[in-house]
Amino acid sequence: MSKVAIVMGSGKDRPIMEKAATTLDSFGVENTISVMSAHKTPDVALAFAENAASDGYSVIIAGAGKAAHLAGVMAAKSLLPVIGVPLSASLDGMDALLATVQMPTGVPVATVAIDGATNAALLAVAILALTNPQLTAQLKAYRDRLAEVTLEG
Amino acid sequence: MSKVAIVMGSGKDRPIMEKAATTLDSFGVENTISVMSAHKTPDVALAFAENAASDGYSVIIAGAGKAAHLAGVMAAKSLLPVIGVPLSASLDGMDALLATVQMPTGVPVATVAIDGATNAALLAVAILALTNPQLTAQLKAYRDRLAEVTLEG
Amino acid sequence: MSKVAIVMGSGKDRPIMEKAATTLDSFGVENTISVMSAHKTPDVALAFAENAASDGYSVIIAGAGKAAHLAGVMAAKSLLPVIGVPLSASLDGMDALLATVQMPTGVPVATVAIDGATNAALLAVAILALTNPQLTAQLKAYRDRLAEVTLEG
Amino acid sequence: MSKVAIVMGSGKDRPIMEKAATTLDSFGVENTISVMSAHKTPDVALAFAENAASDGYSVIIAGAGKAAHLAGVMAAKSLLPVIGVPLSASLDGMDALLATVQMPTGVPVATVAIDGATNAALLAVAILALTNPQLTAQLKAYRDRLAEVTLEG
Amino acid sequence: MSKVAIVMGSGKDRPIMEKAATTLDSFGVENTISVMSAHKTPDVALAFAENAASDGYSVIIAGAGKAAHLAGVMAAKSLLPVIGVPLSASLDGMDALLATVQMPTGVPVATVAIDGATNAALLAVAILALTNPQLTAQLKAYRDRLAEVTLEG
Amino acid sequence: MSKVAIVMGSGKDRPIMEKAATTLDSFGVENTISVMSAHKTPDVALAFAENAASDGYSVIIAGAGKAAHLAGVMAAKSLLPVIGVPLSASLDGMDALLATVQMPTGVPVATVAIDGATNAALLAVAILALTNPQLTAQLKAYRDRLAEVTLEG
Amino acid sequence: MSKVAIVMGSGKDRPIMEKAATTLDSFGVENTISVMSAHKTPDVALAFAENAASDGYSVIIAGAGKAAHLAGVMAAKSLLPVIGVPLSASLDGMDALLATVQMPTGVPVATVAIDGATNAALLAVAILALTNPQLTAQLKAYRDRLAEVTLEG
Amino acid sequence: MSKVAIVMGSGKDRPIMEKAATTLDSFGVENTISVMSAHKTPDVALAFAENAASDGYSVIIAGAGKAAHLAGVMAAKSLLPVIGVPLSASLDGMDALLATVQMPTGVPVATVAIDGATNAALLAVAILALTNPQLTAQLKAYRDRLAEVTLEG
Repeated sequence: MSKVAIVMGSGKDRPIMEKAATTLDSFGVENTISVMSAHKTPDVALAFAENAASDGYSVIIAGAGKAAHLAGVMAAKSLLPVIGVPLSASLDGMDALLATVQMPTGVPVATVAIDGATNAALLAVAILALTNPQLTAQLKAYRDRLAEVTLEG
Repeated sequence: MSKVAIVMGSGKDRPIMEKAATTLDSFGVENTISVMSAHKTPDVALAFAENAASDGYSVIIAGAGKAAHLAGVMAAKSLLPVIGVPLSASLDGMDALLATVQMPTGVPVATVAIDGATNAALLAVAILALTNPQLTAQLKAYRDRLAEVTLEG
Repeated sequence: MSKVAIVMGSGKDRPIMEKAATTLDSFGVENTISVMSAHKTPDVALAFAENAASDGYSVIIAGAGKAAHLAGVMAAKSLLPVIGVPLSASLDGMDALLATVQMPTGVPVATVAIDGATNAALLAVAILALTNPQLTAQLKAYRDRLAEVTLEG
Repeated sequence: MSKVAIVMGSGKDRPIMEKAATTLDSFGVENTISVMSAHKTPDVALAFAENAASDGYSVIIAGAGKAAHLAGVMAAKSLLPVIGVPLSASLDGMDALLATVQMPTGVPVATVAIDGATNAALLAVAILALTNPQLTAQLKAYRDRLAEVTLEG
Repeated sequence: MSKVAIVMGSGKDRPIMEKAATTLDSFGVENTISVMSAHKTPDVALAFAENAASDGYSVIIAGAGKAAHLAGVMAAKSLLPVIGVPLSASLDGMDALLATVQMPTGVPVATVAIDGATNAALLAVAILALTNPQLTAQLKAYRDRLAEVTLEG
Repeated sequence: MSKVAIVMGSGKDRPIMEKAATTLDSFGVENTISVMSAHKTPDVALAFAENAASDGYSVIIAGAGKAAHLAGVMAAKSLLPVIGVPLSASLDGMDALLATVQMPTGVPVATVAIDGATNAALLAVAILALTNPQLTAQLKAYRDRLAEVTLEG
Repeated sequence: MSKVAIVMGSGKDRPIMEKAATTLDSFGVENTISVMSAHKTPDVALAFAENAASDGYSVIIAGAGKAAHLAGVMAAKSLLPVIGVPLSASLDGMDALLATVQMPTGVPVATVAIDGATNAALLAVAILALTNPQLTAQLKAYRDRLAEVTLEG
Repeated sequence: MSKVAIVMGSGKDRPIMEKAATTLDSFGVENTISVMSAHKTPDVALAFAENAASDGYSVIIAGAGKAAHLAGVMAAKSLLPVIGVPLSASLDGMDALLATVQMPTGVPVATVAIDGATNAALLAVAILALTNPQLTAQLKAYRDRLAEVTLEG
């Protein structure tokens, strides 16, 4: 079955990014979580991206703050869909949002909301669900529960 | 084979959004392009989203400007991956970017750069390539040409 | 007599949005308060908007944060005046302000200040007062008290 | 029948603000259009607001740019619903948007999109339609045409 | 001797605006401090501005937050120099800054930093010092002390 | 009689800053206009500021763009009232506005609107008018003409 | 003698970035100019950075727009001083500025103004001048000419 | 050996700016730390900059908040490389960032991240390392440790 890679630029990002892992776990989607930085450990990040497909990953989720380049590095070195999570480490996350989403033509990053790690996981599930009807059913159930919880407001 | 839906909020968005169609065509990915608005034709938009999966679409690309809600409507009514393209109709596209990317927990939109219709298509291709090795090969070739053109700079 | 609908995108919005109900109550204006989301419960939101007029509502007040689409959905599916309250759930409410106010030509939302639920209620009262002289008198009294309290400053 | 006042802060605002008049004309809603400034002709603006209700107006539409105070003055001196149109005279209209929408508790302005004069008129029509079923029917027809034109996109 | 008027839009602004009074006191400059609002007590504000010169004031300092119009009202109704203090009541004061500084040609407001009430007082002193050599000497002494305190840093 | 110094950071600023001179001329207020830069000719700027009072100037108007420090240098080295004009050389003038207005406690700059050179001159006139009743009368006449022109709008 | 590398993310950046080369040429500082992209040609960019020191470069100047990561990649893979030039390809360059300057602790980029390629070269010259008195003399002469040209303004 | 000057605009900046000293100490780079202000002690700042080279400094690090001019003053009066640290004293540091980085052509400031005092020191080390192989080795070791710590994340 498919596997999702969750990477983040700093150990300080764990409280946010672990929500992606928790969400994927709740869908039964295999995932790994690692810290690596586009700027502080570029070789590790590049090697990870380069090998992600052959290492069995289908989707990469990358969270980073400030001049957030980690998702961009993943997208530059992998052909897999890369989901970027801008983190609010400074400027309420506006710097990370722009550094993640404003990618040049040719190398897209699928950007979700600032600190939106749960949504990154759900987007990964939606991608994997294209060839996994059980995940579609689980997504449907998730949305139904979400609607219920919302209406109980 | 998989099909991609391209929707946009206004006929004025065609010059940008047709780049998504052109790019998908160049990969041999079937696609349709339609105008519908979250605010001006909500029923059409909702019905489109609701039926997208059963109509054979795998991915939805939605482009809109200003208070850009079209991608959000697609994501609210479909479990398919939805890619949002914020358009620079006003405020250089900052309003559309925030209205597209800042989705609530539970309903993600995969947002690309302002006016980034080509990247939306490439992201759709990367998603479809997960189960289509030929598309992966084409993406690899696209990236190789992109690198060549860049270095000729 | 006229009735005002107060809707909000999440139960977390209650502390702000209940100010609208309190203010309407103080004017003796009938109102209801409900949680529904443009993205998490789109069908509920759409049905609510579609039926608002026939259900006896005269004005809809919609509060939401982030990519705030709830007021836009109300406006798309109802011909009643819709008042939008952008909530400061992220980015100090700038995302919600732009997602609420920058509506396309044809479908307006009457937007008030960030977290301005009391003002949304007062605007609803001003609208209802057009055919209710007693409300005008109450508004006049409200403003007089406001002036007094301000000058006591 | 009801009458709408359109006021603007400078003769330079006519190209935008006359769209409000044109739209109201198309609905058969009586309207007047005048130039007056919160800063350059404060007495004229104040007197206009103070007398608007007794002069037979039901709604005031005020358009202004930069430190846009005209709508605020109208709201401060009238109990009628006041619709503010922030104009893009500088900073793409962000200064006018904030100066129009961020009103203090007690004195709301119903703010529409930057340069959104047509929407201001439509909002006025929606308000007047609450007691005028013919306007509701016209609004319905307007929305139907809007939907048609959009879908022809 | 000259007198400075300090006005503010709300009693909540006292903690910041009283710094202006304290500073003026330390220079022996007569001053009054009052709460009045461009929106909540427009007649009081207008009358104050209109009579400020004949009431013996030489300079008006006006502090307000959000859609900060108080300084603009003072400038619209008085020929005295008006100093605006944008207050950080929302959006870190960016709304108040733009609403205060972006005045139309013909009616200036001398704007100081966000929450800069002390500087507003010092600017008033600099204006009064043009015809009061003793104030110039006091300003010189203030700057000398400021330099000393800074260097002790 | 009093004299006003107009300084600007670059010859490119002349088209905007000469409006200050024209306005002062129309009031019969003596003025000089010079180019000097806080960064490119710091010694000239510092000497100018240091000697401004003894050279007979009463007010200094300083216009600059980008990281606009010229008004700050004037204020740092002179006790005269300093009026800053942020120029829109980049970022629509937001950089110059913040660099001009956000002065530290102790050293104020009286900031006017972006590119507001005419208002800078009018503010200087209002300051000089405190001890020159003829200027007050001229300001009154200016405002009367401004009102007439506005109403002709 | 020392050599400066000028790299840019796209051939479209040449008109701005060639100013860096022209400026370095005028100081007699050897330089090369190349196009390479952090996202489109990551391996080329990484290899360039990794070998820059051994290839005889002393300083790297990197210009890029949008989600500008090129300077960050250079800094991540080289210990040389890296100067970043944010380019105004979108959002007036605010995205590129934040993506260039907000680097994480440990990996700095020396950022200059938006489109400030000439200043990037001058900063490189100032760095090289630390061990080259002739460059210091040339910088002194450059500043003297700059002052003259400014004063002729 | 080379010496680095650390200057800051206020004693309140010490908690951030002392990180620069600590970092330089850890590399064995001589440094001094002083408080001086472009606006509050302009003569001290100017004299410091003017004499910095002859006083044996090789690099100047200047930290300031709000309308941050200190780095600009250093750059205006010295030919040494000047590194600017924008401090988050207001507006999350956006005012200081723009006031520091947007320098005019001819007088660059090497700007690092908001509150990025450690990076300012590392940039100074990278500059000094150009002629000091031991510093290069230390930088290499610093980066290696940084990578280790990151990966332990």
